[in-house]
Amino acid sequence: MAEPGVTRSPTTTELDAWRSFLRAHARMVRVLETELVAEHPITLGAYDVLVQLAEAPDRRLRMAELADAVLLSRSGVTRLVDRLEVAGMVTRERFGGDGRGVVAVITTKGIDTLRAASRTHLAGVVRHFVDHMDPDELASLGAMCARLAE
Amino acid sequence: MAEPGVTRSPTTTELDAWRSFLRAHARMVRVLETELVAEHPITLGAYDVLVQLAEAPDRRLRMAELADAVLLSRSGVTRLVDRLEVAGMVTRERFGGDGRGVVAVITTKGIDTLRAASRTHLAGVVRHFVDHMDPDELASLGAMCARLAE
Repeated sequence: MAEPGVTRSPTTTELDAWRSFLRAHARMVRVLETELVAEHPITLGAYDVLVQLAEAPDRRLRMAELADAVLLSRSGVTRLVDRLEVAGMVTRERFGGDGRGVVAVITTKGIDTLRAASRTHLAGVVRHFVDHMDPDELASLGAMCARLAE
Repeated sequence: MAEPGVTRSPTTTELDAWRSFLRAHARMVRVLETELVAEHPITLGAYDVLVQLAEAPDRRLRMAELADAVLLSRSGVTRLVDRLEVAGMVTRERFGGDGRGVVAVITTKGIDTLRAASRTHLAGVVRHFVDHMDPDELASLGAMCARLAE
């Protein structure tokens, strides 16, 4: 299947590890999404957008910077910002000499919503992710993932 | 922040590991998506749908089963199947006594597209995922992820 000398296909063991990685991520996201929307007026994707804006200098990012910063789906970012704007949690502001650049800015309402939602979300991260590993395993997983993310 | 006795927030180290996990996944998906669409007429989400159908009994799944089976975004599955149907890679068939159930079925064209795309995709999984870890690390990551996915 693979072109010799250039690439190879994964072994069954390697493919199993890859699929477990995808399955673990899918399960985490589904469980955390379900818990979040049960208690707060935002989805996990919206939470991700609000976190990135809240942690940015002056609590604002250009749309392209925001798409790069989010940890979940970059493709839906414009629609997420649309919905957050309607909900009063984000505003869009023009900038630059010709006023053609657009930044997304988190509002006070956005910050308040994020603060409340983060209690649910972070408790879920502990319960569904951290608590399933001992500290050495967690450190090892974190280090490997940091390498993959480079 | 956390409610005492019920839940707690992650430590900085724990949160870093969690974010690295999300970042690693985001990077893998982005790189593999870019490589796939450069060479084949399907996105990574469509690839995921085709794989699940190709591996299912009789190469077909009910829409709800398909949404549960995919490893990437379950929310976009209906739209992905719409596009794959237009492209001739999937058909929808009615089933059941009243004909109200719908299954998605992968076509021969879908199988052929998947086979060609899998060479690109699986080589990418080796290059961007497998090759960044030694066999022990990969086994350990796989085992931890399998536990998280349960």
